Amino acid sequence: MSNLPDTVRLDGDCLEIIDQTLLPGQVKLLRLRTKEEIYYAIRLLKVRGAPAIGVAAAIGVYLAVVEFENKKFDDFYDRFVLAKLYLNSARPTAVNLSWALDRMEASLLKNRELATPQIINALREEALAIWSEDIEVCRRIGEYGLKLLEKGSGILTHCNAGRLCAVRYGTATAPLYLGQERGYNFHVYADETRPLLQGARLTAFELAAAGVDVTLICDNMAATVMKQGRVQAVLTGCDRVAANGDTANKIGTLGLAVLAKRYKIPFYICAPSSTIDLNSATGADIKIEERDAEEITEMWYRERMAPDKISVYNPAFDVTDAELISGFITEHGVISAPYGNGLRGLM
Amino acid sequence: MSNLPDTVRLDGDCLEIIDQTLLPGQVKLLRLRTKEEIYYAIRLLKVRGAPAIGVAAAIGVYLAVVEFENKKFDDFYDRFVLAKLYLNSARPTAVNLSWALDRMEASLLKNRELATPQIINALREEALAIWSEDIEVCRRIGEYGLKLLEKGSGILTHCNAGRLCAVRYGTATAPLYLGQERGYNFHVYADETRPLLQGARLTAFELAAAGVDVTLICDNMAATVMKQGRVQAVLTGCDRVAANGDTANKIGTLGLAVLAKRYKIPFYICAPSSTIDLNSATGADIKIEERDAEEITEMWYRERMAPDKISVYNPAFDVTDAELISGFITEHGVISAPYGNGLRGLM
Repeated sequence: MSNLPDTVRLDGDCLEIIDQTLLPGQVKLLRLRTKEEIYYAIRLLKVRGAPAIGVAAAIGVYLAVVEFENKKFDDFYDRFVLAKLYLNSARPTAVNLSWALDRMEASLLKNRELATPQIINALREEALAIWSEDIEVCRRIGEYGLKLLEKGSGILTHCNAGRLCAVRYGTATAPLYLGQERGYNFHVYADETRPLLQGARLTAFELAAAGVDVTLICDNMAATVMKQGRVQAVLTGCDRVAANGDTANKIGTLGLAVLAKRYKIPFYICAPSSTIDLNSATGADIKIEERDAEEITEMWYRERMAPDKISVYNPAFDVTDAELISGFITEHGVISAPYGNGLRGLM
Repeated sequence: MSNLPDTVRLDGDCLEIIDQTLLPGQVKLLRLRTKEEIYYAIRLLKVRGAPAIGVAAAIGVYLAVVEFENKKFDDFYDRFVLAKLYLNSARPTAVNLSWALDRMEASLLKNRELATPQIINALREEALAIWSEDIEVCRRIGEYGLKLLEKGSGILTHCNAGRLCAVRYGTATAPLYLGQERGYNFHVYADETRPLLQGARLTAFELAAAGVDVTLICDNMAATVMKQGRVQAVLTGCDRVAANGDTANKIGTLGLAVLAKRYKIPFYICAPSSTIDLNSATGADIKIEERDAEEITEMWYRERMAPDKISVYNPAFDVTDAELISGFITEHGVISAPYGNGLRGLM
């Protein structure tokens, strides 16, 4: 297992995160205190990954109100709601952000008869519960996922659904880390994941740091490694699962699922139940974040790699049709098609 | 039409090329004289694209022997063969390199009874013929291709099969340039094409320079734009077509073809007959070049974007199964499945 620090944690009155924009060159911890610092850390992907930004937002909204212990309830609640709305607007696609913030608000409302310092204390406990549950949820996803995989398999993954997207084990990587402890000898293929290269910078980094056998490929090489028989399963994370099983995840996931179907490779989505959104009936209801053109044309480069003023389309996510998904690996077990009943049953 | 200079041409006793490694930032012409200069220009992708490297090699092998006008035939021929083998080894996948060099050798052997200066003169004429035929071949591919496309269509292309891969019109871009002259109003999606970004640096550049409506996307966004109904046809070039229609082209082409099939989008390969290799029975006979890991991990970046010592797989091409290809657009017309007869008939 890796000896990296936790991706996100509450330390005293600070949110401590690994600054993921500096990886793999530098492992730097940031200590954030204000809601503005935390908003921009999420917005600018210093902390990213659906589970991790949920935990960060929960801790963030607690820190945003911790100083208001002398306020009366209505005033305190106003400030809480303001901070919640603000943090919730940092990114639109992952449902975990609103899920975690709603849980924090439910805690607050449950304790509304208490004195403000007690409400604050309960908020702290709730944020810590969300944090520790994330570790346990990922570990259970790892256990259920591992049962689906053969020893010696090639596993392809996309973006970073690793420990860096959660607190500790990650979602799609949890079976890989557990498998490593138990001698499964997986061969992992990590898509580099353009435009922001989370696969190269984060997944390849964290798996290699833990001693897992990982090979980096460009996204457009996935078809070839599948055709060559090197891949026995695809595991990815997700940002939002609609009630019918349509799944938003990092751009490129849809294409992988189509390829996996052609090559008869099982395609699994690792989904903490916090990522399931029964309010979205299908993928068509999921808002897809579009990000700046410069992420594609220049962000990481020595010089600009596309002509000036070129039109660019940069959706950060896509929606994979439920029919392409072999199963959802959740903390409560594996859900198979038809997904509607299973997902509703889980919630 | 573009006002860029020709991609490759013979000027006096020099091969003049646009240095494609400097695009899109700088349009710089290189004048190459020795076979070593020309070998490295091909090897290092200063000139690239199957048709263009064929033309460059034809001019190169002429320049390599032009100074030997005082040699007797056997000695002259030895030096020719040496230069031919050397230039042919610059890159392995595109068949145009050996096709053009074989054509030059056939010219030499046809004229073996002549005096060496006359043989040299015939070699010069043959190289110029290969050059001018490329322009005509691409123009005809454009005419045949345009008949397959509806006005206002969205066209997706991969890598650079543009004027920068040939002398002037390109292969997959020839229908797009002709369509532009005739008011077809195509909307072109250019895959950036990792790892070397020929789509961003070259295709987006040359199409925008010619005023074509082009939108740059990352390779992993192709599935999304297809699913959204934005793409009515996929056009790519190719590096080698086997006798059964299996086609080697830039890595990522196979995945696009699988996606196009799912979304019922015609997938056309633009193939000068010089790219058809009846000596390769199927795609399994085509040697796929693997290139350096650093192309993926650091080549274009401000800093290294993957962990040190990470395993990398970097195939430069893939093979698209014949069954995924809707048709080959050649200078002699469009070849439909079953391909075996059509491709043999063409040759």
